Amino acid sequence: MSAMQDLLAHAAQTAALEQVAGRLHWDQETMMPKGAATQRAEEIAAMEGVLHARRTDPALGELLETAQAETDFEVSSLRLISRSYQRATKIPARLAAELARTASLAHGVWAKARAEDDVAGFLPVLEQLITLRREEAACLSGETRGAALYDALLNDYEPEMRAREIAALFDAMRPRLVSLRAAILEKPMPAAISGDFDETAQLALTREIALAFGYDLDKGRIDLAVHPFSSGSGSDSRITTRVARDDPFNALYSTIHEVGHACYEQNIDPLYHLTALGQGASMGVHESQSRIYENQLGRSLPFVTWLYGQMQTAFGGLSTDSPAALYAAINRVAKGYIRTEADEVQYNLHIMLRFDLEQALISGDLAVGDLEAAWNDRFMADFGFAVARPSHGVLQDVHWSAGLFGYFPTYALGNVYAGCLMQALRADVPNLDAALAQGNPRPATDWLRERLQRHGSLKPPRQTIEDAIGGPVSPEPLLRYLEEKFGALYGL
Amino acid sequence: MSAMQDLLAHAAQTAALEQVAGRLHWDQETMMPKGAATQRAEEIAAMEGVLHARRTDPALGELLETAQAETDFEVSSLRLISRSYQRATKIPARLAAELARTASLAHGVWAKARAEDDVAGFLPVLEQLITLRREEAACLSGETRGAALYDALLNDYEPEMRAREIAALFDAMRPRLVSLRAAILEKPMPAAISGDFDETAQLALTREIALAFGYDLDKGRIDLAVHPFSSGSGSDSRITTRVARDDPFNALYSTIHEVGHACYEQNIDPLYHLTALGQGASMGVHESQSRIYENQLGRSLPFVTWLYGQMQTAFGGLSTDSPAALYAAINRVAKGYIRTEADEVQYNLHIMLRFDLEQALISGDLAVGDLEAAWNDRFMADFGFAVARPSHGVLQDVHWSAGLFGYFPTYALGNVYAGCLMQALRADVPNLDAALAQGNPRPATDWLRERLQRHGSLKPPRQTIEDAIGGPVSPEPLLRYLEEKFGALYGL
Repeated sequence: MSAMQDLLAHAAQTAALEQVAGRLHWDQETMMPKGAATQRAEEIAAMEGVLHARRTDPALGELLETAQAETDFEVSSLRLISRSYQRATKIPARLAAELARTASLAHGVWAKARAEDDVAGFLPVLEQLITLRREEAACLSGETRGAALYDALLNDYEPEMRAREIAALFDAMRPRLVSLRAAILEKPMPAAISGDFDETAQLALTREIALAFGYDLDKGRIDLAVHPFSSGSGSDSRITTRVARDDPFNALYSTIHEVGHACYEQNIDPLYHLTALGQGASMGVHESQSRIYENQLGRSLPFVTWLYGQMQTAFGGLSTDSPAALYAAINRVAKGYIRTEADEVQYNLHIMLRFDLEQALISGDLAVGDLEAAWNDRFMADFGFAVARPSHGVLQDVHWSAGLFGYFPTYALGNVYAGCLMQALRADVPNLDAALAQGNPRPATDWLRERLQRHGSLKPPRQTIEDAIGGPVSPEPLLRYLEEKFGALYGL
Repeated sequence: MSAMQDLLAHAAQTAALEQVAGRLHWDQETMMPKGAATQRAEEIAAMEGVLHARRTDPALGELLETAQAETDFEVSSLRLISRSYQRATKIPARLAAELARTASLAHGVWAKARAEDDVAGFLPVLEQLITLRREEAACLSGETRGAALYDALLNDYEPEMRAREIAALFDAMRPRLVSLRAAILEKPMPAAISGDFDETAQLALTREIALAFGYDLDKGRIDLAVHPFSSGSGSDSRITTRVARDDPFNALYSTIHEVGHACYEQNIDPLYHLTALGQGASMGVHESQSRIYENQLGRSLPFVTWLYGQMQTAFGGLSTDSPAALYAAINRVAKGYIRTEADEVQYNLHIMLRFDLEQALISGDLAVGDLEAAWNDRFMADFGFAVARPSHGVLQDVHWSAGLFGYFPTYALGNVYAGCLMQALRADVPNLDAALAQGNPRPATDWLRERLQRHGSLKPPRQTIEDAIGGPVSPEPLLRYLEEKFGALYGL
């Protein structure tokens, strides 16, 4: 018997007794001898006593609470299964299979084109993917043109979000990010870390830090791959990483990032495991977890201070002589072409470029043949220097080769959400920095698990964040965090 | 197994298969030999085919629909049981029993006081009831003064409604009702029906009409009582009536009115029987059913035209010589003291008077000792002539003696809802008048059952109405209906 069944049985008995009480009133008005009025008042008061006791039964309070949780689960399951059903029934099976096949094949085509800086080699399959995804978007939206097409694709990654909301968010962020970057780039650039870092030592340190952030290797694994990613959910939540001998932060921070994703999946309520609720609420919410692990926590001064000691031990010394210098190196803002290597200040500008270009590709305003030129022009306008090779430009990301149009903006959304979460986390966990300075992010990850991760897809994405932070989403906390952090770092 | 359980089992298998598909991608990035790319694309497309077939399974569509209905039921049950629990736990058992006892006893006190025109004999118990209900309202609202007290009581009858919303509605209605009445009263008054009407013949006709309106006497009964009322729910939904030898419309229209209430209860989905959903959504929604049966249908020209023939047969002639004259008599607007005898134009003005006075009683702005004077002053202001005896004034209604403060406005709300429903009904059932002219209200009552009654308390009151009419609630349809009907009748 579920709590709901118990509750309904309790309510049915109460309803029956209420009918009994009601019949006393009917009788009083139709059949009752006049002299029975005082006795009837006592009878009615006695029935009211029985009913009141039933209605206030403490067992009822507990049943209500449990049944509410059961029902929340069922309501969310219905919402998600229904959405998936509505979506799937709009897509012909042929199109679904062709998209899966083409995206799988396109991966190799793109990898080869990128390795050879051969844009022309990639364009035919890109054209195919855009055609297929436009067709899919038309099936989903019932429209053949206009903003509805891109929104339909965006909704696969960020349900209930529209491109124009994201555009408004980006418009609000861009001026402050551009002006922060300009102020930083006028200052002397901190030294980068250089050296030769033993790969085994890197992997050992990475693994130790993954565990410190709460990653459960009994329900996951870390493998090497060309591009770090996370995969699976629940008790099989895996991540990959990569190691570069000359850059220990590549393995380290990509791992912390993927650990954020994987911990989100591992920390979802086990009751939701292998149900429609058993995954992150959206890509934006997912990215908020990877970002806050990687940036707000992992690139914070107290954590880097702890890391400085660890790295000295692991690698037998460092080319920099203080935690502060390591912190400056790790948070170095430099000119660069590559999104995945971008610092926190410039990262969202890379996203804005992709967001605008992919909307134009899907709407048809931008032909595939003009994409490279459009990328290069826009990059020059946004970053102030020219793209020298397509592998540093239009070919750098895997996403479009996988047919992922509408995915990029969820990265920036994740940053915004991470900013909101960090502000709420700091308010709730005042001793956070002291723990981070001991290499212990658990007060933060426990807070995130409790406030957000355990709910999986129980609530829609926006509500997932708003319930966690106790207020509305705004880009303000992220912007203030960036201005304060980099303002202090660069003496602005 | 419920549909929800089947649905969750289906979703769990889909989620497991999605994990299998996801593992192919993980493998492709970590372990897969390079030469396997084409085969892998086919494997992925095949899995997508399996998943797409599952996601679009027609059985899933049916399960979703049934599970949605199950869940709607559970969600509404939770809402209602929780509301009842929250309410009950705020009220001490002593207060609940004392209120029930006092209200029961007060009924006899009031009936005697009214019979003897003895206000002073009623005031002590009224004072007691107000004190108890104020105490209850304070428990419910957590406030000891202000609008929250009356709102707490109002909510027992009309959940989610506030006094200031009703006041705004009344402010919008009053000028047009007052001006319509003024215009009517300048015109000659139609003749009333007079005569001696055999009580047995009255009851036989009344019963026939009750059946025509859809009342199921297998699940109800009609008894005589001093005041007509309806009682019970589901398969025991009873009504009472009264007969006056000189006024056949007393029995007839009070019966049609109570039949509206009882049909609402009888027509609720049998699955909701003896559950928290198995009753009308609110008193206002309930009253909309009794009102539309009694007024918009029962007092309409086509129905009265049919009734003319029936009455001639039943009573062997009538003092009026045409259906039109009978229609004018039945819809006669005359000066009068008594709410329950008021015509459709003036009825809501009686409610507005009570609404303001009872708010003042509950807030404490009006002392019980000053109530009679306040009533008489307000009646003179609103109706233009003096109350001669308390049984025609402050003592006329049973409600306050039963502790029902906050109940009166739901009558006017019911009229507003009935106006909205009639407008939507006319749009959907163009042949309505032809059926009514044959004494057949079933096209209307079928529409009401389908659109509103069967849902019981599944939805909150406002939504119950809005879903039935397909738009927002407004007093406009009622006012237009009254202006058109009485404009035509009085040649305005």
